[in-house]
Amino acid sequence: MNKILEDYLHKNIPISQAIGVHVEQASLDKVILSAPFANNINHKKTVFGGSLHAVATLACWSLLHLNLMNESKPVQIVIASSNVKYLVPLVSEFQAECLMPENAFWQYFLKSLHKKGKARIELSAKIYLEETLAVDYRATFVAIEPKQN
Amino acid sequence: MNKILEDYLHKNIPISQAIGVHVEQASLDKVILSAPFANNINHKKTVFGGSLHAVATLACWSLLHLNLMNESKPVQIVIASSNVKYLVPLVSEFQAECLMPENAFWQYFLKSLHKKGKARIELSAKIYLEETLAVDYRATFVAIEPKQN
Repeated sequence: MNKILEDYLHKNIPISQAIGVHVEQASLDKVILSAPFANNINHKKTVFGGSLHAVATLACWSLLHLNLMNESKPVQIVIASSNVKYLVPLVSEFQAECLMPENAFWQYFLKSLHKKGKARIELSAKIYLEETLAVDYRATFVAIEPKQN
Repeated sequence: MNKILEDYLHKNIPISQAIGVHVEQASLDKVILSAPFANNINHKKTVFGGSLHAVATLACWSLLHLNLMNESKPVQIVIASSNVKYLVPLVSEFQAECLMPENAFWQYFLKSLHKKGKARIELSAKIYLEETLAVDYRATFVAIEPKQN
């Protein structure tokens, strides 16, 4: 699944290739994406905040995409908002990790999607420096079922 | 000033070159950065949210950088947090515009920086689709004076 997801991201979202996004882990429970330092360095020789946000966004989008494919849901996923706290500067390769929310939230989301053809879910991604939380990312995604003709 | 800023961004933050960031306007009042569609397309053939966030971040950082250079303040600028609302999907080249906040906020920021060696300021950037606000970005930046030895 890792190679398929990585190829999909690089082909369809070319900036993910420029960032050097690599899929470390991709399952229905968790997606971990990494990116090298060199592609994402800034003027202070730390990782550019825009790159941290982009990789976190791609981790959350990927996890939602994999889970919706698993439900055989042909939906569009749109990001509605995001919120990031940059807690510790990073000076090396980094990994963004997105975990599935509690099952009750997921079931509520699927029920709303089935009932209304549209539903929102909040996902979070975290980037650590060793044991310390360095970037705390939260975003709301909207899934929309295609209209029936 | 446009060419100097653009060269600085491309050289020091290489992902800005991959995004295709172009400085449309750079003054002490306003920075406008643009980016082409092709570099920033996603799987839905709209602009990737990560690219919108990155260009907005660079517009705000640039405006703060130019104003602090104008005050002859040798400071580090760090992003502390950001918050984005994606209101309308974009399907073409886009521009992120960052304006200086009210002068009273700027003076308060400079006063705090002078007094404490450290100060925070909130800046916002907007991306429009014709007359409609498409992306509303807000971020808090921290300026830190180098320690005296």
